[in-house]
Amino acid sequence: MKKILQNQKENFIDQLIELLKIPSISADPSHKEDVKKTAKWIENALNEIGCSTVQIYETAGHPVVYGEILVSENAPTVLVYGHYDIQPPDPLELWESPPFEPVIKKTDLHPKGAIFARGACDDKGQMFMHLKAVEILMQNNALKNNIKFVIEGEEEVGSDHLEKFIRDHKSMLQSDIILISDTGINSIENPAITVGLRGLSYMEVTVTGPNRDLHSGLYGGTVANPINVLCDIIASLHDENKKVNIPGFYDQVEEISESERKKMNENGLNEKSFKDSIGIDAVMGEKGYTTLDRRSIRPTLDVNGIWGGYTGEGAKTVITSQAHAKISMRLVPHQEWKKISELFEQYFKAMAPKGVKVEVTTHHGGNAYVTPTDSLAYKAAEKAYNDVFGVVPHAKRDGGSIPIVPMFEKVLGTKTLLMGFGFDSDAIHSPNEHYGIDNFLKGIKTIALFHPYFSELYGNHQ
Amino acid sequence: MKKILQNQKENFIDQLIELLKIPSISADPSHKEDVKKTAKWIENALNEIGCSTVQIYETAGHPVVYGEILVSENAPTVLVYGHYDIQPPDPLELWESPPFEPVIKKTDLHPKGAIFARGACDDKGQMFMHLKAVEILMQNNALKNNIKFVIEGEEEVGSDHLEKFIRDHKSMLQSDIILISDTGINSIENPAITVGLRGLSYMEVTVTGPNRDLHSGLYGGTVANPINVLCDIIASLHDENKKVNIPGFYDQVEEISESERKKMNENGLNEKSFKDSIGIDAVMGEKGYTTLDRRSIRPTLDVNGIWGGYTGEGAKTVITSQAHAKISMRLVPHQEWKKISELFEQYFKAMAPKGVKVEVTTHHGGNAYVTPTDSLAYKAAEKAYNDVFGVVPHAKRDGGSIPIVPMFEKVLGTKTLLMGFGFDSDAIHSPNEHYGIDNFLKGIKTIALFHPYFSELYGNHQ
Repeated sequence: MKKILQNQKENFIDQLIELLKIPSISADPSHKEDVKKTAKWIENALNEIGCSTVQIYETAGHPVVYGEILVSENAPTVLVYGHYDIQPPDPLELWESPPFEPVIKKTDLHPKGAIFARGACDDKGQMFMHLKAVEILMQNNALKNNIKFVIEGEEEVGSDHLEKFIRDHKSMLQSDIILISDTGINSIENPAITVGLRGLSYMEVTVTGPNRDLHSGLYGGTVANPINVLCDIIASLHDENKKVNIPGFYDQVEEISESERKKMNENGLNEKSFKDSIGIDAVMGEKGYTTLDRRSIRPTLDVNGIWGGYTGEGAKTVITSQAHAKISMRLVPHQEWKKISELFEQYFKAMAPKGVKVEVTTHHGGNAYVTPTDSLAYKAAEKAYNDVFGVVPHAKRDGGSIPIVPMFEKVLGTKTLLMGFGFDSDAIHSPNEHYGIDNFLKGIKTIALFHPYFSELYGNHQ
Repeated sequence: MKKILQNQKENFIDQLIELLKIPSISADPSHKEDVKKTAKWIENALNEIGCSTVQIYETAGHPVVYGEILVSENAPTVLVYGHYDIQPPDPLELWESPPFEPVIKKTDLHPKGAIFARGACDDKGQMFMHLKAVEILMQNNALKNNIKFVIEGEEEVGSDHLEKFIRDHKSMLQSDIILISDTGINSIENPAITVGLRGLSYMEVTVTGPNRDLHSGLYGGTVANPINVLCDIIASLHDENKKVNIPGFYDQVEEISESERKKMNENGLNEKSFKDSIGIDAVMGEKGYTTLDRRSIRPTLDVNGIWGGYTGEGAKTVITSQAHAKISMRLVPHQEWKKISELFEQYFKAMAPKGVKVEVTTHHGGNAYVTPTDSLAYKAAEKAYNDVFGVVPHAKRDGGSIPIVPMFEKVLGTKTLLMGFGFDSDAIHSPNEHYGIDNFLKGIKTIALFHPYFSELYGNHQ
């Protein structure tokens, strides 16, 4: 198989570059046609690798692309989930090369080169590995299990219409395991399989004071200034130990045993290189926990955006009528994201002083997820990683959220295995996102090994 | 004189509307040519009313337009200052009619109609009254004093280059009194002459954390989030009594006697109509002071703008690298604006936690000013207001700042008289700025009476 990949890799990279050129920004209505075009591109790619059924399913939002290869009724079925939509590329001025003109450059962490483009890693690059791995297996007549691809276009905006699609096609989507590559590894030398994801609750708040913008000389110091009020409330969201101050926030939090925490931190991150990689001189977070704890087993709250008043060049002496913020919370087992969103809303409204009105809306959310490490799929993955990376991967919990994972379990009753190959430093959601060529090719190999290992273990197990 | 104005008023209003159509936004480099065009327009208008000398003086920023009428060496000289530049019109979507397409509409407070346009009141409308008052006096051979017009184009961005112009032309600009209409009256029934202005210190802060935008799942809760830090520091700028928390901020503040405060508040504002006019259910400000105190004799601090992170539609799970705010302080006698700016900078930097860098810059500023009420000019103005409004105007202190007023006194040694005619509700610096037709015409009449009264008092006094 190694040789085959050798012959095809240029071709695979060229295909990915082609896919990365389409700005499928799901959050931006002006890119609706690009999102559609990308769905068509995926449809075509699924046909080309040999899917017997391929179909674009329209939703109330962006379409879902479905493809399947049925090998045998008795064989196990792997449902591959990925997304073809991407985050907005702004701030554009911080990109060293245009986000939709992919270029390959070498970096310290990617000595064999990395593709720089929005979506290179999240998730076009990682999703595309699955298509190519299956293509190799098909060409070699080595695919022994059934495959179902569900590639959606709304992951970056909360997968609002995916649940309905899943519910509407429950029998079509039956499988033995769901496979997703949308997470990462620490390094090529120290690969990991993600076994935990945090939940998410993403909120937006608007503070409204006076019914129009006011002159700050005539009104300054006499009215509740919506920006000052917003800052006051945001500041009050954490206490002096950087714990989240919302009453009830920690009530359902799963407490991890000291021994488990210790084990987890042994595989954990090097704080110096963590700080160096993002150019900070100190970390900050909840007292009593390590950086690794804070981003995996502890819930957190961060402001993702804030705006209000005059933000142009120069000075304008104005008191704005409205100020806004986007605030998200990362959740852990067993926090319920809808409950947390409610607690947030109650708190924010209770903190609003007289003279302003506060509006709180929920963008989207999802619960945390922990995947078992004693499953056949996990064992198959462990074996595949070991073959390709030469070391047994460790199990790690991630700070990010893939809200559809708990949803899949709820609706389909199926567990998910997270086989990611990106690096934290790949700048997903940031300017200069990239994905290592080596990660991409090793990912394809690992996945191409996973399927036969899984079929084999499954057969022995039956 | 009443009849003459009657014949000319349509004409005067048409001329003002023409002036208001030019978007002379000094803060916006893309409007540089419009600012230039407006200077030419003023030059032409000064020629038309009969100035003997008119000249546009270039500066390192926008030009100053100068005009003079010399009646006699023995006559007193009035220097009229005004500005032809305007605030940016944003947020545009809140304007009921386009900001540069003036329309006349009646309102509750302006039953005779008001002109709606950016700059209608601040300061094109108020500045233009002076040209028209002098025109009437010239036509009637009634101008007994010398007039010097200094109409600048950078007031809304801090009059950065005016001081140099004044210093460079000190002898040309000698006068007995400086006259400015850039303030307001409470109502037609209760006119006032502004005798106090607050100072200003306008700052901008940038909080920089990680060297790039980060994914909030992977990094949330582990690093100092620049937006959260900015909100924390802003929240800490006021204490629980809404006093400004910056050490030394109140050290030089002039304390007003209880009796003076009492007298001031007798002419003071009706809190219910104050709240109703801006649609709020409660005021907020420094404990122990009335709303009128808070906006006239007490220093204050307000955020004028804030921005950072993702502010587009939908949700982006990002931790921004930088967050920004524009923050201004209104100052009272005898606070030194440069000292206050320094104290602000020291405080902001001292409050920054590890893991972020804070940059603080000063946009511009000026000291507070109190004008005497026992001067010949004040007495002439009092008489003129009484003639036109039928009531003796009271003296009031304003919350706004005109930093050039103390600068004039420092450089030229000349006092300023503030004869304003706008209403607080005229929405200067806001969407739907307007200026009452009645205010405009009464202003012209009052100014046209002021000049002969001032000459007369001055002659008697010599």
